Amino acid sequence: MPAEQNLNIVPFVSVENMMDLVLATGAETFLRELATYVEEDFRRWELFDKVARIASHSRDGVIELMPASDGQLYAFKYVNGHPKNTRSGRQTVTAFGVLSDVDSGYPLLLSEMTILTALRTAATSAIAAKYLAPKGAKTMALIGNGAQSEFQALAFKALLGIDNLRLYDLDPSATERCRNNLAGLGLTITACRSAEEAVEGAHIITTATADKRNATILTDNMIGPGVHINAVGGDSPGKTELHRDILLRSSIFVEYPPQTRVEGEIQQLPADYPVTEFWQVVTGQKTGRDSDGQITLFDSVGFATEDFSALRYIYDRLRGSNRFENLDLVADPDEPRDLFGMLLRRAAQPATSK
Amino acid sequence: MPAEQNLNIVPFVSVENMMDLVLATGAETFLRELATYVEEDFRRWELFDKVARIASHSRDGVIELMPASDGQLYAFKYVNGHPKNTRSGRQTVTAFGVLSDVDSGYPLLLSEMTILTALRTAATSAIAAKYLAPKGAKTMALIGNGAQSEFQALAFKALLGIDNLRLYDLDPSATERCRNNLAGLGLTITACRSAEEAVEGAHIITTATADKRNATILTDNMIGPGVHINAVGGDSPGKTELHRDILLRSSIFVEYPPQTRVEGEIQQLPADYPVTEFWQVVTGQKTGRDSDGQITLFDSVGFATEDFSALRYIYDRLRGSNRFENLDLVADPDEPRDLFGMLLRRAAQPATSK
Repeated sequence: MPAEQNLNIVPFVSVENMMDLVLATGAETFLRELATYVEEDFRRWELFDKVARIASHSRDGVIELMPASDGQLYAFKYVNGHPKNTRSGRQTVTAFGVLSDVDSGYPLLLSEMTILTALRTAATSAIAAKYLAPKGAKTMALIGNGAQSEFQALAFKALLGIDNLRLYDLDPSATERCRNNLAGLGLTITACRSAEEAVEGAHIITTATADKRNATILTDNMIGPGVHINAVGGDSPGKTELHRDILLRSSIFVEYPPQTRVEGEIQQLPADYPVTEFWQVVTGQKTGRDSDGQITLFDSVGFATEDFSALRYIYDRLRGSNRFENLDLVADPDEPRDLFGMLLRRAAQPATSK
Repeated sequence: MPAEQNLNIVPFVSVENMMDLVLATGAETFLRELATYVEEDFRRWELFDKVARIASHSRDGVIELMPASDGQLYAFKYVNGHPKNTRSGRQTVTAFGVLSDVDSGYPLLLSEMTILTALRTAATSAIAAKYLAPKGAKTMALIGNGAQSEFQALAFKALLGIDNLRLYDLDPSATERCRNNLAGLGLTITACRSAEEAVEGAHIITTATADKRNATILTDNMIGPGVHINAVGGDSPGKTELHRDILLRSSIFVEYPPQTRVEGEIQQLPADYPVTEFWQVVTGQKTGRDSDGQITLFDSVGFATEDFSALRYIYDRLRGSNRFENLDLVADPDEPRDLFGMLLRRAAQPATSK
């Protein structure tokens, strides 16, 4: 938490400062620390003011707002999803977010969240797997080797000790890049020529593809007993990755049912199909994995509390740090009800150098 | 619109730059120009993707997100409302907002909106009065002389030619400040000792009080035939300003009924009580004022399209201007799917001076 300062100033964590914070911390340590915040907020789930994200859909993508509050802090994230963006050199997903003080409504922090979202998504996946994956899991298939893939790999290494990765992507150059980026980080990596090959011997199967349409990345015959499926890519209406038959054989765990029913893999199932809310596994109210042969599925779409946790973590990390800039974001007149007078006094000042 | 620049950079209009933009333009010119944008977007109403604002209520206030899109641009505003904030030297209402490109989902502009909201609220009030107030109105009662009051006064002067103001506030020092701030701006101002006195001879009555509770600023006997009531302060559940009997005698015009039914003066009326959507008056589909004796009421709560209009205006005004800073807000890897690689390349760079 930055030292007390003028009421008009809001700390801003730029992309560059976020990168430096991650690098100074070490990506795996960052993921482990971030995961403790995410897990803590799953445990405090019932405290939160929760709402399914507010989506504005257009032909090529979606822009979403994701607010959440625990009654003391409020956070929201702005995030887009535009699969065609890569053609124009842009990111499919970019994001930024704000953390605020509920008592005053004043913003405490503005942060880039493109990188932070990749980290929180991976941290959340790994926490879910900690509760749901088979004991002693060492091998993960990672299908879809785009922007999210290395973060998933490192989170599963950091939190579960996964050291064997089997990569597959429709685009071999994506697999190659993922492998190169992860070189020297302590993972044994196999590049596979098909999804079928990738899942061979895997205890955990992570799907993180980006096409905005219903696709079948995994078919029923590819899923043996006892695996944990971490389905990350299916996260909006009309965008799924798994064949419906896999869902019917799995115990399904979700973040926030009202959102997941619309956006997750379970949009393929009836609206009353039984699923378990993951937070209840964290609190011990529900069982996670209950047998060796059980197929567990974390149908992850990304929920606002996870972004809340991530911003809360960053805010705590800024204490004693200089990895932020000061933004003159909130009007702060000498007398709070005298907004117009602030304008008049500005007019009376000599022009600044700008 | 700023010149083309790096994909990671988002222009940011600080409080200081917003003040300088308003001062360089002149507040009345700014209000007139802004009003053309607001009016144009009321005319294009049916194009918009609209939603009632998403509110997170707490004991002392509310934090709201207000998104809107016309299919090409997307905007949202973050705004709080905390009446007790003035006790700690803070603003009751602060705000900031973002304008984005729908096709890519990328932000185009981040702007302070505390000042801008005050201006857009006043501009919207004046546009409504242009359609609804009695012809030749010259005198306005302004009840509630807080942060919004001078902006209302100037907007009604700039757009309707109001030159006679009758002020009243429970707190005489607020009235005094308002009068001082408006001195020399071409308005004849009378400070009144009661709301009853303020409304004497007024053609337009503007209420802009800030208490977060149902109050009765205006009672039925105070409202003569033919006046236009511009009710600005009643804008959240449990916060109203007018006695119900006034509503029953008035023709009521609203912004977006699903939001106004919950937040506006009409929360005192049955959910199916007939009201007119103001945009239909702008397009000519519905009649505004239809007789000299009619009492018209603009039950204004502030709608997301007005913030969209304000951000669109600011974005256009930035063309050829240097009244913004550049924020490194969006991660922009050389290769769009290689977010992790961007981190690795950052690690390989020498440390910056920060």
